[in-house]
Amino acid sequence: MNPFSLLGFRDGAPGGATFCAFSTAEDRELEPVFHSASAAEADLAVELAVAAAPRLAATSGAERGALLRALAAGLEAQAAALAARAHLETALPLARCQGEIGRTCGQLRLFATEAESGRWADARIELAQPDRQPLPKPDHRSLRRPLGPVAVFGASNFPFAFSTLGGDTAAALAAGNPVVVKAHPAHPGTAAHCGQIARAAVREAGLPEGTFSLLFDAGHGLGAHLVRHPGLAAVGFTGSRRGGLALMELAARRPRPIPVFAEMSAVNPVFLLPGALAARGAEIATGLAASIQLGVGQFCTNPGLVLVPRSAATEDFLTALAGRISAASAEPMLTRDIHRAYVAAAAARAATSGVRLLARGATGSGARAEAQLFATTLADFRREPALGEEIFGPCSLVIECADLAEMRAFAEEMEGSLASCLFFQPEEIESARALAAVVATRVGRLVANAFPTGVEVSPAIVHGGPYPATSDGASTSVGSRAIERFTRLVCWQSCPPELLPRELH
Amino acid sequence: MNPFSLLGFRDGAPGGATFCAFSTAEDRELEPVFHSASAAEADLAVELAVAAAPRLAATSGAERGALLRALAAGLEAQAAALAARAHLETALPLARCQGEIGRTCGQLRLFATEAESGRWADARIELAQPDRQPLPKPDHRSLRRPLGPVAVFGASNFPFAFSTLGGDTAAALAAGNPVVVKAHPAHPGTAAHCGQIARAAVREAGLPEGTFSLLFDAGHGLGAHLVRHPGLAAVGFTGSRRGGLALMELAARRPRPIPVFAEMSAVNPVFLLPGALAARGAEIATGLAASIQLGVGQFCTNPGLVLVPRSAATEDFLTALAGRISAASAEPMLTRDIHRAYVAAAAARAATSGVRLLARGATGSGARAEAQLFATTLADFRREPALGEEIFGPCSLVIECADLAEMRAFAEEMEGSLASCLFFQPEEIESARALAAVVATRVGRLVANAFPTGVEVSPAIVHGGPYPATSDGASTSVGSRAIERFTRLVCWQSCPPELLPRELH
Repeated sequence: MNPFSLLGFRDGAPGGATFCAFSTAEDRELEPVFHSASAAEADLAVELAVAAAPRLAATSGAERGALLRALAAGLEAQAAALAARAHLETALPLARCQGEIGRTCGQLRLFATEAESGRWADARIELAQPDRQPLPKPDHRSLRRPLGPVAVFGASNFPFAFSTLGGDTAAALAAGNPVVVKAHPAHPGTAAHCGQIARAAVREAGLPEGTFSLLFDAGHGLGAHLVRHPGLAAVGFTGSRRGGLALMELAARRPRPIPVFAEMSAVNPVFLLPGALAARGAEIATGLAASIQLGVGQFCTNPGLVLVPRSAATEDFLTALAGRISAASAEPMLTRDIHRAYVAAAAARAATSGVRLLARGATGSGARAEAQLFATTLADFRREPALGEEIFGPCSLVIECADLAEMRAFAEEMEGSLASCLFFQPEEIESARALAAVVATRVGRLVANAFPTGVEVSPAIVHGGPYPATSDGASTSVGSRAIERFTRLVCWQSCPPELLPRELH
Repeated sequence: MNPFSLLGFRDGAPGGATFCAFSTAEDRELEPVFHSASAAEADLAVELAVAAAPRLAATSGAERGALLRALAAGLEAQAAALAARAHLETALPLARCQGEIGRTCGQLRLFATEAESGRWADARIELAQPDRQPLPKPDHRSLRRPLGPVAVFGASNFPFAFSTLGGDTAAALAAGNPVVVKAHPAHPGTAAHCGQIARAAVREAGLPEGTFSLLFDAGHGLGAHLVRHPGLAAVGFTGSRRGGLALMELAARRPRPIPVFAEMSAVNPVFLLPGALAARGAEIATGLAASIQLGVGQFCTNPGLVLVPRSAATEDFLTALAGRISAASAEPMLTRDIHRAYVAAAAARAATSGVRLLARGATGSGARAEAQLFATTLADFRREPALGEEIFGPCSLVIECADLAEMRAFAEEMEGSLASCLFFQPEEIESARALAAVVATRVGRLVANAFPTGVEVSPAIVHGGPYPATSDGASTSVGSRAIERFTRLVCWQSCPPELLPRELH
């Protein structure tokens, strides 16, 4: 395994801080030792990307599609080794790692199809009208063009789908942008392996070496340096709110500000209407407990808040949900830092006035997380703004509301989230409709009678949502529409064919 | 004329600072006295907008189209009075004011057509696939939805097309967003008149009063207060770089940051290739001089930099251009402040080392501007970063380049601009192609053999460009695509028809 950064076709040098991946499942460091890139190496990666940008921008959709399909084929060819390494580095179940590789390949091929179709470019041609009164109309032709070099920060919780060859990389390449990936330090081996696949595919496609680079860093300094590089055009990030806000501030303070597409934190409120609670409370409790625990709660779509109305069925529902959480085994989290943060945040929540601990799962050693379920009232929730913040891990907070009006009031006040779910019976459709109208103004995805975890990769999906769920709020980081975030509009006026991109001939 | 702010259907109260419009052409204050809105009145305008947002978001495209068409009809019905007042307040020629009303009506109707077509919403429907392996696929339906209340800052230089009922207002309403306009203090009478037309149209359409408000302020404090209001969802601004940057910073520092679409400053470089210079230098000089002086140089697309290669034809071209500038009459600028800033900036430029004054037009009294033409070399331009900054007024800077390679080097280094123009002969197409490939990465609109002033309003136009031309760089502030800036993507998963917007049934 190559333990150095990939600067186009060149390898980084030793000399920087070294680090290893750590298996929280086996409580041990993993071979090999990885070498942080130097600032000069990060600069070289961006300079290679700047040099590659014109050639990449001039590729056809077919060329870009072929590159993306080659990446998918490369992942598939080495799926067994990749899944094994990711399983070791992230402690996510092997089947999950295998499934995520499949999802990532599907994602790469979706963007290949989008690149090939050219639909994303929104090409528009208006011919000249030389006889128009009072003024002649010139010829205008416009389309979306690539932005330039994009920095992509790998996510801790998706070693494939949101990391080295994940959604942001696929979207950026599909539009014709070079990519510099900052590997997440928690799974450097997976990143290195994916990076080699990318390097081989770029070389095979005859594209310039600056098309793809991969940088290792033991800490956060290199990422900050990267985002300040004048050659960079945009940033894609999936991670904590603190990390996202830091990147937003760095990018805004550059002499030339650039956009940061940060997916940061979400609590994804689940609303249980009284009829649904009465008719199928036990079934919902089972599904909700599974959603809370999925991936040890390390999903951006984790259901962090559950709104329940006070009714005869509430006690049974809470008992059932608490029973499921109490029965949860203690599973290893992605990293020791994430585990420490989870323990601290859950302890703070337990100590918050007005909050009751309803259930706690099994206790484990090392970085294993206890699932936890808390409850409070809407009045107490309103008194403690921290209760509205995401806790990254297998826990959730039930908010007891007096009635539907209180649930609606919560919706009016809620912060932006990636997703939100409404459970209701057919006879409650009017209440659901009124609530959904409000909730839809606060989220990127509104789900009826299902849980927020699990995001389709497709042309119609939206994985976004108002701040603080994302920095952008307008776009999506999953699905083929994500290609638009790494583009900008350009118009050619009265230009002969030689000056036009081929899409406008 | 109503001298108070319009807070929905209510009028503002006296009590704040008062101010008058000022005619720079006649060097006198204009009746009536206008009253600045208080902070509480600005809050009320936003609160009315917040209250109106759900109803507006639920309107059909036909309803929004009818509102926009009513605004156009209202402008047309009162075009004579509007043009007369705008002429008085801005010193722009009456014919220009009349023409701009026509353009603004066309713009409102273009957005009406866009709203009616629904094309902008990009509705996507993916039906469920319950039998899909390994997991069933849920039903997903998504489209663009309005963002919420939008603050629009009127521009000094376009009292109609970029002000009260201008492009940002039309785009925001077309997507279903309420609008709070901060009137430009230089043309309050025009704004008041347009505001009354809007109020009447909103009332006639049976829409909530918060659909439209108009705020007066003698200074900048109210605008800053407005942008900080938690109910606001986005900002549209056309004006100075300083003003745009101030709004960007305010918006980024809110507890919930919001997007600012600021069109700020551009120098719109014009490249003259040697063959074109030799074949038709005199003709280009005539057209260029007219473009520099159009609207007393107070256009965001003003040609602020002119790149010429050193050749036998250069001297004749510069003589012809200088002759036209020398013959320019002194015309009144929009405001006394703008005139003062122009005089100071031109004086600083004249005093810059390496800069020669090539020509100066007639001198006039009061706020009348002398047209000015400067020249420098690329080497001197590179030494003085201030030479790359926009001077708002009838002046331009010729940059003499040794050869095409130097022109290409300038293009590689140039900042983002709204537009850029290449003049070339058919036999120079290869040089033009190579230059255009670079320039197209720096601008929103690339023009062949024509001048940058004059922007079509159409589906294919792009009036945007990388920072510092705009804050956003990816979108356009003119043409029907501008509707997208005031929208965000939302997806409904597994929702019954009752929970879906009508576009997704």
